[in-house]
Amino acid sequence: MKKYESLTKAELTSLLNELEANYDEMKRKGLNLDMSRGKPSPEQLNLSNELLKIDIFTAKDGTDCRNYGGLTGITEARQLFADILDVPAENVMVAGNSSLNMMYDMLSRSVTHGVMGSIPWCKLEKVKFLCPVPGYDRHFKMSEFFGFEMINIPIKDTGPDMELVEKYVSDDAEIKGIWCVPKYSNPQGISFCDETVKRFARLKPAAPDFRIFWDNAYAVHHFDENNHDVLLNLFVECEKAGNPDLLYVFGSFSKISFAGAGISAIGASKANLDFIQKSLANQTIGFDKLNMLRHVEFFKDLSGIKSHMKKHAAIIAPKFDVVLSCLTKQLGGLEIAKWQNPKGGYFVSFETLPGCAKQVISLCKGAGVTMTEAGAAFPYGIDPDDSNIRIAPSFLTEAELGSAMELFVLCVKLASVRKKCEEIF
Amino acid sequence: MKKYESLTKAELTSLLNELEANYDEMKRKGLNLDMSRGKPSPEQLNLSNELLKIDIFTAKDGTDCRNYGGLTGITEARQLFADILDVPAENVMVAGNSSLNMMYDMLSRSVTHGVMGSIPWCKLEKVKFLCPVPGYDRHFKMSEFFGFEMINIPIKDTGPDMELVEKYVSDDAEIKGIWCVPKYSNPQGISFCDETVKRFARLKPAAPDFRIFWDNAYAVHHFDENNHDVLLNLFVECEKAGNPDLLYVFGSFSKISFAGAGISAIGASKANLDFIQKSLANQTIGFDKLNMLRHVEFFKDLSGIKSHMKKHAAIIAPKFDVVLSCLTKQLGGLEIAKWQNPKGGYFVSFETLPGCAKQVISLCKGAGVTMTEAGAAFPYGIDPDDSNIRIAPSFLTEAELGSAMELFVLCVKLASVRKKCEEIF
Repeated sequence: MKKYESLTKAELTSLLNELEANYDEMKRKGLNLDMSRGKPSPEQLNLSNELLKIDIFTAKDGTDCRNYGGLTGITEARQLFADILDVPAENVMVAGNSSLNMMYDMLSRSVTHGVMGSIPWCKLEKVKFLCPVPGYDRHFKMSEFFGFEMINIPIKDTGPDMELVEKYVSDDAEIKGIWCVPKYSNPQGISFCDETVKRFARLKPAAPDFRIFWDNAYAVHHFDENNHDVLLNLFVECEKAGNPDLLYVFGSFSKISFAGAGISAIGASKANLDFIQKSLANQTIGFDKLNMLRHVEFFKDLSGIKSHMKKHAAIIAPKFDVVLSCLTKQLGGLEIAKWQNPKGGYFVSFETLPGCAKQVISLCKGAGVTMTEAGAAFPYGIDPDDSNIRIAPSFLTEAELGSAMELFVLCVKLASVRKKCEEIF
Repeated sequence: MKKYESLTKAELTSLLNELEANYDEMKRKGLNLDMSRGKPSPEQLNLSNELLKIDIFTAKDGTDCRNYGGLTGITEARQLFADILDVPAENVMVAGNSSLNMMYDMLSRSVTHGVMGSIPWCKLEKVKFLCPVPGYDRHFKMSEFFGFEMINIPIKDTGPDMELVEKYVSDDAEIKGIWCVPKYSNPQGISFCDETVKRFARLKPAAPDFRIFWDNAYAVHHFDENNHDVLLNLFVECEKAGNPDLLYVFGSFSKISFAGAGISAIGASKANLDFIQKSLANQTIGFDKLNMLRHVEFFKDLSGIKSHMKKHAAIIAPKFDVVLSCLTKQLGGLEIAKWQNPKGGYFVSFETLPGCAKQVISLCKGAGVTMTEAGAAFPYGIDPDDSNIRIAPSFLTEAELGSAMELFVLCVKLASVRKKCEEIF
């Protein structure tokens, strides 16, 4: 295929007319598809249906999980998360159905009560968070909700720009945290390299209440067990570096068992956990232990989780193939877009020509395919280049995905040609 | 039995010696019983075991409860809580396993973001809460955690002293809330009378962000379906009085199905719910809908709940009989104690002579029976009279309860006689 850059005016005009006609035709198809969120498909959810039949209620140590108590979660669930997150079980606290809610609680508590004795953030003039971009929209929305000033940090193939991170964190005591999805990141699908992880562990924050919010949401979510990313263990690296309190790691079963009906956990140093639990005792008597027990009984251990994740991969990997092969076939060589080929996770991060993302998404919407809002992967919803689009292939069937992607690449071409024409004419 | 008041010095001394000897004997029995918390017994929890076998996942409207979404909870769970709390379903939001956590969230959000546009409480010099006493220790602990100044309000048989409540609420804009367990109150087991409820609805708070925290934890928890308290509907009364936003009502299945593994809900005006949900969208994608569905499938409707609660009553009412008949038989006429005879709920509130509660509890502990800490039912853990003791009969078997109560009344007598002797000699 010919690069759009090298097209003559006449070729461009003719291409524009052709694409506009194709788009009008697509509109008439009356698609009605939603690719906006990283939701598991019903087929994936079916994989865990047996979990719903588990009716035991007694934990290994005799705890009656139908009754009150146990703020840290049952021992065997802590162990299960310890295996996933690669953190000692005594450093894990298991919570409710939403790791996002736990992150919110961590922020909220820091705002009202500070962190391990620090001044409550609500008493400070300003609180800033570093936000590797593009990133997870809900992290940014949450930070915005608390009025934190968000600072964009570019993400490279190796992770966030660590030079920038180090400088900000050591220079500015108003910087209280950084959001990371370190493995199969949302939306790029990249994993932080060993050196990046080590540099995180060695951060020397100006603020003693600075924390790394390490949202390890896709720890076991790869497509191919023989070819997957391996993330260095930040918990261990932080200990090695003499910085054990620097880190909160979060995990969730939402994309292992049931989305929004699984269990979640936080891993942290003893000092952090003691502080969290002392505060949390004012908030709840405990989380749902029956659901913890169901999960342990169904998955048993890390090997059980791994074999379960293979079944997920068998469903989800072909969907990524549909997306990626369509992109390659339809856009390869045109030099109007870039995208990444993740080995796991839930997203494909796509870059249009600068200034085209909003239009692509609006064109898709106009023909019946809903994408994640343009700019959503950036603080305040502002993509400075207006070029990032998050593709979420998981929920649709392969056939639906084929139709959606056919429209998507058409919209990318159309928006790009429109842009070129604007520039030239 | 002879009033202690009328005993001669010699009689008192002889009684003291006898009681001390009895106590030493009790100590040798080596009891190890815990009456400190209102935990349901295993027999009560067994009543809901079939709930654990429910494996459906599709809500009536087709929602796949295994997937993300639905911040307000599924329609049929909202309806179920609407029936329990006597609030329209559209005014109900169903949440997670802990209504306490929802109360915490309401406070925390008020602290960080204010209430429907008011100044965030963290920006105010002082926030005060009215605390009807004795009351639920966790309400008070939570308020203390946020640094609120707590003001004791005496509870009478008709509910809190409304004259005092009205005066405080209308005079002082720093007063932002009042804690109420309006039905089978914790710990007295009394229910607020109609006039009290009406006066709550007609409050004219100086603070626009004042709210009534109406923890209706024991809405359907009576012992006898033919002789139970009826609570006037504060939601309706607030609407009638033109004060719809004054109220948050909380409910929970913790003492209907499983303690800490049920579902919870808040009922509030549309304006309140809109504000809550807009904020909550930054906190979580949604609560566990599978557990909502299980509860709806198991209980069906209010009539299902009522017949289930009869089974609870059949287990719990005889335990209250053990407690109350022991108190009457052993302490009746001695004029060293007062207690209430609740028609529902989880507690018996007991009053020793002034200055004896701590000693009674310490004596019980010394002989192997753990009671709720003295003062726990008061803000800051301070019972000004040192006389209130909360008896929680639910968890122990009737036989265990018999032993525990035998010790308890002995300790009450001993502490009372010691007190009398101190005064006289």
